[in-house]
This record gives sequence, structure tokens and C-alpha cells, in this order.
Amino acid sequence: MHKMEELFGGIEAGGTKFICAIGKQSGEILGYQEIPTTTPSETFDKLTRFFKSSHPITALGIGLFGPVDLDRDSSTYGYVTNTPKQGWANTNIGKMLEALGVPIAIETDVGCSALGEYFYGPAKDYNDFLYVSVGTGVGGAFMIKGELHHEKKHSEMGHIFIPHDFIQDPFDGVCPYHGDCFEGLASGPAIEDRAGEKAEKVIDPFRWDLEAQYLAEGVSSLMMVLNPELIILGGGVMKHGGLVGETTRRIKSLVNNYTELPSIIAASDRNAVLGAIKLASQFRIPG
Amino acid sequence: MHKMEELFGGIEAGGTKFICAIGKQSGEILGYQEIPTTTPSETFDKLTRFFKSSHPITALGIGLFGPVDLDRDSSTYGYVTNTPKQGWANTNIGKMLEALGVPIAIETDVGCSALGEYFYGPAKDYNDFLYVSVGTGVGGAFMIKGELHHEKKHSEMGHIFIPHDFIQDPFDGVCPYHGDCFEGLASGPAIEDRAGEKAEKVIDPFRWDLEAQYLAEGVSSLMMVLNPELIILGGGVMKHGGLVGETTRRIKSLVNNYTELPSIIAASDRNAVLGAIKLASQFRIPG
Repeated sequence: MHKMEELFGGIEAGGTKFICAIGKQSGEILGYQEIPTTTPSETFDKLTRFFKSSHPITALGIGLFGPVDLDRDSSTYGYVTNTPKQGWANTNIGKMLEALGVPIAIETDVGCSALGEYFYGPAKDYNDFLYVSVGTGVGGAFMIKGELHHEKKHSEMGHIFIPHDFIQDPFDGVCPYHGDCFEGLASGPAIEDRAGEKAEKVIDPFRWDLEAQYLAEGVSSLMMVLNPELIILGGGVMKHGGLVGETTRRIKSLVNNYTELPSIIAASDRNAVLGAIKLASQFRIPG
Repeated sequence: MHKMEELFGGIEAGGTKFICAIGKQSGEILGYQEIPTTTPSETFDKLTRFFKSSHPITALGIGLFGPVDLDRDSSTYGYVTNTPKQGWANTNIGKMLEALGVPIAIETDVGCSALGEYFYGPAKDYNDFLYVSVGTGVGGAFMIKGELHHEKKHSEMGHIFIPHDFIQDPFDGVCPYHGDCFEGLASGPAIEDRAGEKAEKVIDPFRWDLEAQYLAEGVSSLMMVLNPELIILGGGVMKHGGLVGETTRRIKSLVNNYTELPSIIAASDRNAVLGAIKLASQFRIPG
């Protein structure tokens, strides 16, 4: 009897869009759809339709923008908790996906990106690495030997406090909790609020130098705490031309030879959705 | 035949003094001596005399001010590497202790404090915890399930970059590598340089509020990255009356209910030297 190869669903649930994919554990992707992030009910309605109309899947992995409750003993396991994102606080993600009738594995979006980089990208050659994502928010994930380092709570690396250059940048920051924390100063919405236009339209080199400086401060601090062998810089903002290089140059300057720098590289494409598929594959049907 | 209980040596090697002790694995201390930190040869000479003239020990553990090379595969394993401390850069600690003729286990001073808090203090009841020491330097150690979290390199948590209030505090900071990093702004030498007098003589409440603010910024950032279940604040500076409480209050205010705060407590006495004894006890003679 011919045994069909199992397929898995993966979702990268971002603040701007949900990227949905169906693929094999090898990383081969057979179906793909992007859905804009609107209200929870509308967004999950559309993605349920996509998965139901496509290849049948064994299980689904989802990488969520945070904060997410990852404590399996908690009554709010798998909830997006107190996100500043309008309409999404206290959303029960497992329940929203019940209609698909498959097991669901939940992780942060950044955690899924890190899984993708490890299982399908360059990070597999390193004992440990730090993944930093800069987009709608700023997030980080630290992996040791293929395991995400978090106990019951995932890390909130985007909310560290970094030096704020008030003279060059008299800007309050956009974090509703902290104002000018790392995310408050360096996320996509911070760039847009400061410039008064969409980040992809911002061309003033001063603004990108400022961005690289805040990224260098934040990433250097994370590096000092975690001592990773590799740093991967991802997320929408990091795609701006030259930003990874300029950030790296400034990290080198800030750290000032105090400690040896790890390799610093740009993220792989589709790492989060691949990581979500990997996450789902933990539910493989034996046999 | 009567079997004598084994004794172990422990050293807390700080920037100001070396605390030497001889004790049992239970934590009972039988001999104790403080030696001022002068040149490496003079300091090690004195401590060799102390250990040789006291009870015989099976092994010795030492907790060193950083940075220390903890990579056992490295040609400079157990060296204090590029410390700003005059005369101590590139000191081969193992060699300095050879005359004692016992196995040596090497850790950072902060790592030993954390070991002491876990094996003889309140931290044993927690899955993971963060130990932050503020004294001659600022250092941190993170322990998960009784294991220090560091791979080949220990963490340099004192060198994260934190917001510097230039208006209230137009001070360059004392870190020779980074100027106004966490350690550069909040260590004992920073307090003394800023005030122009010994830290224990500083009474101006403004200066201690500033200190508490920097400590709160640094510790909050470490907390956001590591999400510990418990935070222990130790080191000479933290002993200033009310500082642990004021720092905790400001952490709460900075974090602003974004995430639940862990317990924050003051360090136990003699934790580092006890941790060093625990470290030495890994060499117990079987039988």
C-alpha cells in the first residue's frame, strides 16, 4: 500500500499579515497564502478557509506575535496576552483554530523564525545563536543545541532599555508600556511615527543611521547577556538596504574589542513559516 | 577505620579583596581569611601561605572577577583575560595556585555567588534565577535547575548599554571599554568617581536615587531577556541601606505591568565563598 507523505501547516502570525503555508517536513512548500492581519475573527476565518480548501494536514504550527502565554499549565496557554495590537489582547489562538480539527503547536513568531534558521538555515552549524527580529515589534529568541531557550515564559528582548539620544532624536518612542524602550525606539512603527511616513518611503540617511545606532545598542546588550556564537538579524525593517551591515559596524564600534564578536548575518527567507511547519511536525503520526 | 570528612578550599577573588575559606561540603566553614587584592604575585603568595598553614584540602574552587576564559579547550583556560584591573590582565590563575598541589575549579565570582545561593541559600526553591552583583564591577549569572547557564564564554551582563540621564548626571562613566555602560554608570567605582569620595561616605540621597535608577534600568533589561523566576541582588554596593528596596520599586515602575515581576531579594552572606567550596567538592575523592 502506498503511504502518502505527511503534510503540515505553518503560520507566521505577524502584526501586519499572516503567512500560511503547507509543506513537508523537508521544508518543501506546496501551498502558500498571505492574509492581512485585521480582526482576529476575520483573519482566522480566511486562514481556516485556506487550509480547508488545500491539501489535508496532519498538524499545524503557529508562530505568534507576542506576548504569548507558553505555559502549558496555565489557563490561558496559547493566548496572545496583553499585546498593544488593537483587538488582539487575550485572544485564545487554539480556540480560533479548532475548526481545522488538527493538533496545534504554538510558539512566538520569533521562536518559529529561529526554528526555521536552525532546521533549514545556516544556524544548524552553531551550538547556540540569537535571532533578533525588527518589524512591527522587536523580538528575540535564543536557541541552544536546537532547543529554544525559554522556560514557561518566553523572552521579551524587545523591551530592554537602551540609551536614547534625546538631542538628535527628541522622540517619545511608541511602546505603550515603556515609551522609549528598544522596541519603542527601533521598531517599524517607531520609524514611521518619527518620520511621518511609511518606513519603506523613508530615505533620509540620518534616520537610518539613527536606526542602526539603536539596533546596535540593543543587539550589543543582548549579546553581552547571552554570548551567542551567531546573531541573525531578521524582520521587515532589517531588509532595508545596508542596515544589517551598518548595524554590525556599529556593534563592533560599541563593543570596542571588549569581547570577540560572533558572526552577524541577515535572516533567511520564510524562516518563520518553515519553523512553524517544523513545529507542527512534532505531531507526526507514527508508522 | 575512621574516615575523615573531606575539606575543600574556596576563594572569592574580588577586585578589592580575596576571601579565602576552608569548609565542608555541608557549608560549614572551619577557616577564613581576607587578603587585599594587590599584585597577582603578592596576593597569591599570601593565600598560598594561608591554605598551606591550615587544614589540608582535597580541592580548591575559585570565583574570579571577570572576564575569565572558561573554555576548557582554550590555551588560556582559567586566565583572567582583558580586565581593566591594573596588573591582572592575562593572569594564569591555575598556574598561580599550582603550589597548593590540589585540583582547581575555576568560575566567575558571580557564578560562585549564584552557586552559593542555589546550594546553601533561598534560590534552591526556584527553577531558575538571575544573580546580579554590583561592586567593583557589575556582573550577572543565570542559573537553570542548579546549572550555571554559560557555554564556553560566561556572560558579560555588566556591559549592557542602559539609558544615561545626561541632564541629571553629566558623567562619562568609568568603563575603560564603553564609558557609560551599566557597569560604567552603576559600579562602586562609578559612584566614587562621580561623588569624589568613597562609596560608603556618600550620603546625598540624590546620588543613591540615581544609582537605584541605573540599577533598575539594567536589572529590568536583564529580566526582559532572561525571564528569571527570582532575582537576587548582591555585591558591596547593594548593601547600602534601602538600595535593594528602592531598586525594586523602580523596576516595578519601569516595567509598568508589561510582564509579571519575579521575586527580588538581597543576596545571602558569604555566598561566593560557599559557592567556591561547592565547586571544589566536584573533585571529591570517591570511597
